[in-house]
Amino acid sequence: MTSLALGLRGLAHGGDYNPEQWPRETWRDDIELMRQAGVNLVTLGVFSWAWLEPEPGRYEFDWLDEVMDLLAGGGIRVDLATATASPPAWLGQRFPETLPVTAEGTVLGHGSRQAYCPSSPVFRAHAGALAEQLASRYRGHEALAMWHVGNEYGCHVTCCWCDVSAAAFRSWLADRYGSAEALNEAWGTAFWSQRYGDLDQVLPPRATPTFPNPTHQLDFRRFSSDELLACFTNERDVLRRHTPDVPITTNFMAHSASIDCWRWAPELDVVSNDHYLLAHLPDNHIDLAFDADTSRGLARGGPWLLMEHSTSAVNWQPRNVPKLPGETLRTSLQHVARGSDGAMFFQWRQSRAGAEKYHSAMVPHAGPGSRLWREVVQLGETLRRLAPVAGATVDAQVALVLSWQAGWACEGPTQPSDDVTYRDRAHALHAALFRQGITVDVVPPDADLSGYRLVLVPTLYLLTDAEAASMAAYVDAGGHLLVTYFSGIVDEHDHVRLGGYPGAFRDLLGVRVEEFHPLLAGQSVRLRGDDGRTGEADVWTEDLHLAGADAVLSYADGPRAGTPAVTRHAAGDGVAWYVATRTDRETTDHLLRQVCDDAGVSAAAAAPPGVEVVRRRTADDTYLFVLNHTHEAASVPADGIDLVTGREVTGSVDLVPGGVAVVQGG
Amino acid sequence: MTSLALGLRGLAHGGDYNPEQWPRETWRDDIELMRQAGVNLVTLGVFSWAWLEPEPGRYEFDWLDEVMDLLAGGGIRVDLATATASPPAWLGQRFPETLPVTAEGTVLGHGSRQAYCPSSPVFRAHAGALAEQLASRYRGHEALAMWHVGNEYGCHVTCCWCDVSAAAFRSWLADRYGSAEALNEAWGTAFWSQRYGDLDQVLPPRATPTFPNPTHQLDFRRFSSDELLACFTNERDVLRRHTPDVPITTNFMAHSASIDCWRWAPELDVVSNDHYLLAHLPDNHIDLAFDADTSRGLARGGPWLLMEHSTSAVNWQPRNVPKLPGETLRTSLQHVARGSDGAMFFQWRQSRAGAEKYHSAMVPHAGPGSRLWREVVQLGETLRRLAPVAGATVDAQVALVLSWQAGWACEGPTQPSDDVTYRDRAHALHAALFRQGITVDVVPPDADLSGYRLVLVPTLYLLTDAEAASMAAYVDAGGHLLVTYFSGIVDEHDHVRLGGYPGAFRDLLGVRVEEFHPLLAGQSVRLRGDDGRTGEADVWTEDLHLAGADAVLSYADGPRAGTPAVTRHAAGDGVAWYVATRTDRETTDHLLRQVCDDAGVSAAAAAPPGVEVVRRRTADDTYLFVLNHTHEAASVPADGIDLVTGREVTGSVDLVPGGVAVVQGG
Amino acid sequence: MTSLALGLRGLAHGGDYNPEQWPRETWRDDIELMRQAGVNLVTLGVFSWAWLEPEPGRYEFDWLDEVMDLLAGGGIRVDLATATASPPAWLGQRFPETLPVTAEGTVLGHGSRQAYCPSSPVFRAHAGALAEQLASRYRGHEALAMWHVGNEYGCHVTCCWCDVSAAAFRSWLADRYGSAEALNEAWGTAFWSQRYGDLDQVLPPRATPTFPNPTHQLDFRRFSSDELLACFTNERDVLRRHTPDVPITTNFMAHSASIDCWRWAPELDVVSNDHYLLAHLPDNHIDLAFDADTSRGLARGGPWLLMEHSTSAVNWQPRNVPKLPGETLRTSLQHVARGSDGAMFFQWRQSRAGAEKYHSAMVPHAGPGSRLWREVVQLGETLRRLAPVAGATVDAQVALVLSWQAGWACEGPTQPSDDVTYRDRAHALHAALFRQGITVDVVPPDADLSGYRLVLVPTLYLLTDAEAASMAAYVDAGGHLLVTYFSGIVDEHDHVRLGGYPGAFRDLLGVRVEEFHPLLAGQSVRLRGDDGRTGEADVWTEDLHLAGADAVLSYADGPRAGTPAVTRHAAGDGVAWYVATRTDRETTDHLLRQVCDDAGVSAAAAAPPGVEVVRRRTADDTYLFVLNHTHEAASVPADGIDLVTGREVTGSVDLVPGGVAVVQGG
Repeated sequence: MTSLALGLRGLAHGGDYNPEQWPRETWRDDIELMRQAGVNLVTLGVFSWAWLEPEPGRYEFDWLDEVMDLLAGGGIRVDLATATASPPAWLGQRFPETLPVTAEGTVLGHGSRQAYCPSSPVFRAHAGALAEQLASRYRGHEALAMWHVGNEYGCHVTCCWCDVSAAAFRSWLADRYGSAEALNEAWGTAFWSQRYGDLDQVLPPRATPTFPNPTHQLDFRRFSSDELLACFTNERDVLRRHTPDVPITTNFMAHSASIDCWRWAPELDVVSNDHYLLAHLPDNHIDLAFDADTSRGLARGGPWLLMEHSTSAVNWQPRNVPKLPGETLRTSLQHVARGSDGAMFFQWRQSRAGAEKYHSAMVPHAGPGSRLWREVVQLGETLRRLAPVAGATVDAQVALVLSWQAGWACEGPTQPSDDVTYRDRAHALHAALFRQGITVDVVPPDADLSGYRLVLVPTLYLLTDAEAASMAAYVDAGGHLLVTYFSGIVDEHDHVRLGGYPGAFRDLLGVRVEEFHPLLAGQSVRLRGDDGRTGEADVWTEDLHLAGADAVLSYADGPRAGTPAVTRHAAGDGVAWYVATRTDRETTDHLLRQVCDDAGVSAAAAAPPGVEVVRRRTADDTYLFVLNHTHEAASVPADGIDLVTGREVTGSVDLVPGGVAVVQGG
Repeated sequence: MTSLALGLRGLAHGGDYNPEQWPRETWRDDIELMRQAGVNLVTLGVFSWAWLEPEPGRYEFDWLDEVMDLLAGGGIRVDLATATASPPAWLGQRFPETLPVTAEGTVLGHGSRQAYCPSSPVFRAHAGALAEQLASRYRGHEALAMWHVGNEYGCHVTCCWCDVSAAAFRSWLADRYGSAEALNEAWGTAFWSQRYGDLDQVLPPRATPTFPNPTHQLDFRRFSSDELLACFTNERDVLRRHTPDVPITTNFMAHSASIDCWRWAPELDVVSNDHYLLAHLPDNHIDLAFDADTSRGLARGGPWLLMEHSTSAVNWQPRNVPKLPGETLRTSLQHVARGSDGAMFFQWRQSRAGAEKYHSAMVPHAGPGSRLWREVVQLGETLRRLAPVAGATVDAQVALVLSWQAGWACEGPTQPSDDVTYRDRAHALHAALFRQGITVDVVPPDADLSGYRLVLVPTLYLLTDAEAASMAAYVDAGGHLLVTYFSGIVDEHDHVRLGGYPGAFRDLLGVRVEEFHPLLAGQSVRLRGDDGRTGEADVWTEDLHLAGADAVLSYADGPRAGTPAVTRHAAGDGVAWYVATRTDRETTDHLLRQVCDDAGVSAAAAAPPGVEVVRRRTADDTYLFVLNHTHEAASVPADGIDLVTGREVTGSVDLVPGGVAVVQGG
Repeated sequence: MTSLALGLRGLAHGGDYNPEQWPRETWRDDIELMRQAGVNLVTLGVFSWAWLEPEPGRYEFDWLDEVMDLLAGGGIRVDLATATASPPAWLGQRFPETLPVTAEGTVLGHGSRQAYCPSSPVFRAHAGALAEQLASRYRGHEALAMWHVGNEYGCHVTCCWCDVSAAAFRSWLADRYGSAEALNEAWGTAFWSQRYGDLDQVLPPRATPTFPNPTHQLDFRRFSSDELLACFTNERDVLRRHTPDVPITTNFMAHSASIDCWRWAPELDVVSNDHYLLAHLPDNHIDLAFDADTSRGLARGGPWLLMEHSTSAVNWQPRNVPKLPGETLRTSLQHVARGSDGAMFFQWRQSRAGAEKYHSAMVPHAGPGSRLWREVVQLGETLRRLAPVAGATVDAQVALVLSWQAGWACEGPTQPSDDVTYRDRAHALHAALFRQGITVDVVPPDADLSGYRLVLVPTLYLLTDAEAASMAAYVDAGGHLLVTYFSGIVDEHDHVRLGGYPGAFRDLLGVRVEEFHPLLAGQSVRLRGDDGRTGEADVWTEDLHLAGADAVLSYADGPRAGTPAVTRHAAGDGVAWYVATRTDRETTDHLLRQVCDDAGVSAAAAAPPGVEVVRRRTADDTYLFVLNHTHEAASVPADGIDLVTGREVTGSVDLVPGGVAVVQGG
């Protein structure tokens, strides 16, 4: 595993740089401030299309030349954007067919951002031409470290329902199915007289009188992700032709359902990700960890890059809470702990105008004379000291299976319960292990699981026969696997596997479910184990029958009183657990401790509650990241050098409230 | 009163059969399973249009021939659909003007179901042609028992606002009013400069800057119901020409406001209804009873057919809760108790794919090796034993006046309180009598009331002078009548009757109301009677003055403290009660006991709380249905034979928790 | 200051008169009833366009001639409408381009009211032609007292996004900015590639993929207000040409954000306002006072006219609660106390049909034999006795700065907290002073403040440099000024003032804020002063640093514990207070008492809680209005004649619960 090959010494530090928002005289101040903060990488030009090509085919690069040269002069490397994230006003004006259209037929026009139809050949041609210009102009420029294609693909225009998209969808379907007959079978169009006589009758799932066909919707999500990917590869291929040695990225939003990142990641040279805390969540540092673990999964375990997070508040939440003192450093190092070879921000200088003017930045409205700026400088120093970490891998004994396609299908229309959301159990299981100090790899359903001691399969509603067989083989060979409810229900066409739920896992889990029994809003049930242990659950129960498995917890009351809720099945040389209800936090924590003990999984280090421990590893050395998320001082066993302070650690490392340490050799 | 004339021996048992969703080899299994379950009737082909006419004018009947013959061979009769419930994709593709359009101008396309404009002559021509094909092909087929036109008319496309509909609406208005002057008067267009110079200026009530004209909206609801009815009669007339002796139905949703069932029912040979429990309602068995009583009312007191309910969970609620053991049987028999000559389900075999795949069925995903299937078989046996009940009428001394038109007007825009919903008091009064074991007939506002001891008039906001006069005459002749607030307010044009509310009932009730006084959200008031009895109410009060009536309950606090809330007026030889506030459950129960005592109304049998008793009657015999909705054993006085068990009943019939009995002669 | 010059003896009493809704025979009854009630002014013809011009260019005035003559004969003067508030059906039918269109592209058609695009030249031409007809016909008519142009401009169609509006918007922008470059600078289009190459690329802020440009939105609100104003002046200029001596008005909704009333008011001869109580607000009499004070501000301190309020319930709230006995009189006199030279109602006779049939009126559905009618007659008598008050000004030592433009910008997209609403603090400060018996003038940001002892600046998010300078000069000269959070943040282009918040007031207030810290939903913090006083606050805190000011209250807990929350800065000869958090009612009341004491501001008279005192003043006399909003008797020191009763007041005036008095000389 090597580092990101961006020509940096150590970890990346910087942010999105939008010099076009500021007068030329500010630019030199920017370079000086970047130097003070130890910035070594900036992302340039993400939203510059209208400045680079003010009218079709007329390009203006002088200002960008000047900025590139200034940055090079300051020793700052550039992640240079193709600037196609948001087209100029003239594109929609001259080519209205490039504008996205909603399912209800509303055209989405210029005036915010990302106003293009992902299937538009006109958009792609103009975007490709701009990439061509940039690649041919800046190939070989001293500052150029990486290409940054588009921006947060699918963030606002996840799908487009226009006529251009409709034609592209039909073409995609023809490739996938070959005939109307095959499509009719896959979509189950015998239902509700939806059968298509010819593929040319198919439309995007536009507004209809009632619930749409779920497979139609699912394929439209697949298609839409693929169309956005084609926008990416369209530009990537231009760039690669000009600069085969310069890595190419685009910034994912790994938490989002907009695109199937598993299909995208192999197309990128560097996996990068944007992450923002949700202010209202009490444990949002655990959500951060989930997102970082997902990014590492997308990078196949190798290093990745946190392309955007915020120094403090964002602007798009109902209440945009700032970060507290020390939080910028701590959250930055959380990402590094989990494999990011840097910590980048949106954005360098806080905007005076526009929709994101209250999004915090490295240089705030208050200017350099501010606590926030001082913390940015401190972060730069810390990242410099952590340079040896670059390229290190992350230790993990546990894998968690995540699937964008399962999520799309799971959250489709007319499911058994609106309260079953795809990522709910994924976050719950991950959080339970986080609280035990156990690091989790996030992997796709078709991953090679053989290296893990324990595999978690939360709400994997949809998977293929081959994926199910791979998991069964893993258990048969001695692996431990835990499945939660509403997994294994349908095949890749969203057809139910018959004969009792969960069809794909029935034999593996040694259970057979005759009916789902969702609970009403606010309804909960008690659980009880043979050992007298009790627990609580809500949202979901099942009419579950044992067929080889043993009951671990049963319902103590409620509509399924006396029947099993959590089971354990010794299968082959391994063990398969099933959790048929939505256990509360305490019950989940307890259960996962039992499961981990059973599987022989242990923490990176013994740590008090609220103190995060993660270990990165190179061929030569290890790095124990210790992050204190509590308001109390804390101590964790370790020996070595704390790279943050440079001090030697003997026996244990002591942290102030909110403090951080990275113990080399620890 | 005769039975449904479907050629069945006894009661109907079966469901929607959609063989096109399954491979041919499944069909023979289906017949065998149907025989095991005692199925004697299936509804076939509701959503088969795309299979029967894969392209315009090219018909494929071979598969349907085969299914019809298989069913005939199995001794199963067929309620054969005209298959026009949902048009194929080609209709909207070739004739876009057939697609429905919302008030905001959004076209609703193919991809779910029911995507046609009810006023479309193109749709009607194609639907009629298909009915013609089916009628001429299957007339005289051994299996053919009934024709099933469309499906749940107006369920999703209740109204259409397109230009085709606009022209049809104008034509309908020209028939109704004759001139713009008459329409202007009826709609009160002097208000807000809405006056039409010519009928050709009138549009459907599309999106407007603010509140639309309420009479405009009301007439549009009337028109839309009539247009859907014209779709029905269009096909019915074709069928009747070919098979004058085969009864024709369509399945109502009697709980829904979509169509005016009173105008529709006389056009059907058999009244049939679809009913689904709402999982979150604690007393949804009482709602079931209301719906069944309404169906019987639509059948003018004669037998009707429960065309659809569910064996267990549905798929379209936020949380789709399954039925508990025994509940399928009990809810089926509730419908039979209240006049249904059978209990049919949606659907025979649970779908693998599509939007309704989680809607339960007679053959569940888990297959015949399941509790649900065993209960379906048990139900079949029970229905067979209940054969003598077929054709029996239901005893009722009380009528409840229901009016779809009053509901439309009551729930129009800019009414005094959003909390006044049309059916709220209807359900409250019906439930109070249900809890007393008193069966209620649901009747239209123009019904002949002379046979009833008590008539309930809940929230009859709109009625005609003739209807009001008929109710006054009923009281004058000795009848007892109870009216709740917001009744008798407007005439058929939604014009307020002046001089004090409730204009149509002021003299009859002996009260005069100067102002409405809606209560705020969460606000409630105390009531007190002369006898010291107290009660509670919310939502609504009035500035009520006695003009002949006596106060029964008065406000003990709140904005109208000391003034009357419930009154009783001895009028002619009868009695007229007025309830001017929204009494809570306990107060309503107490009041209705008083009212029933006064009117000499009594229960079908003495039964403990939660045990339902209903009596059906033929010329020769009676059948006491006893249904235990509690979790306790229960006993009800009866003598005769329990048809469910075949055992003799002497003195009383004993039920297990959730149990049912039908005592012949009881 | 002179009175309204409507040719009335004393105060105006009457309402909207819509005779076209009633048969001719009712008209004479109306006149007789008006005489009984002392009605001296009616607003005629607001919604009569379809009756006056039933088809384009064909006018029918006979009926209006008759009504005008009848009113003249009854001695009732007329506020004659131009009848253009709602166009007839034929306008939209013949000229579809006159119909308004939403941001999503939905056309809003005929059928409710106000269905016209404010920028439509076709609409303006037809409206102007009608005004021409009316002016030339009724100039010199004995009854004509005032012209009433349109009605509640912008109430429903505040903005229009159609192509006609788009062209007008571009023209307005060209006038404002002169070039695309200037517009790009003002809007900050460097952000998100929004830059316009040419002004012809600019559209209204129609539907876009995500957050629109905030300055784009702000300018669209400015433009839309100006376009509506152009509709007004279009007709006004016609009228003025014909009848230069007849005053012209239109009725504002001063509480609404739809138009910038400061820009409109100078264009009117008489400022008039519509006010309706919000039933669910516990202190809606204080909201009434705010609205009346705003109306007086729009009239530059002179008399104005309450054009509409209600005798009892309205029809457009979720629950339309009637007024209790005495409330019609008391709320009418509240408006008069605060400068209205009359109390007019919507409407004279309650409609039988249409969307407002449940809106109360002077003649209710119940007819003259009703409490409500008797109260209307009583009000007429009282207003007659208050004739000497006409033309009097209102005493006020405190000004509150209100800015429609600041409100538009403050409530734009992507602000720090959705919980910060523009008028929240304005109402809170006003209510605190109301509870102290202190009357407040509402003034624009560019007002001459020199006459006030105290100026309140709540949430003045946007203001110009000149306005900020004027406020600083006011303090420097000895004034007292109180600013609340989220004031002074941006300039007129919605660009943040850099260097620390609140940029425009930083020096004046002696503070510097580095970051905003919005609180989460439901989160609150404790406050503590040096004097040990405690308080509570929610919604908003700041990272505030003192730079000359003293802390008055600091946070006792929460994320900013120990830092200042409320400050006081002695600046020049004056004092500047800053309230950086959302203090609760008790804390605000206490603080404002301290601030008023500091500034030497005192009540109009000593009054118990819930008793309102306001003083009007002529050159010769004073009138102390005393209004008891409580359910207890109350006494207020006064000497003189109570005009309501005609009795002499010595030492104190005594009021029954809910009672009113107006003490001449008091």
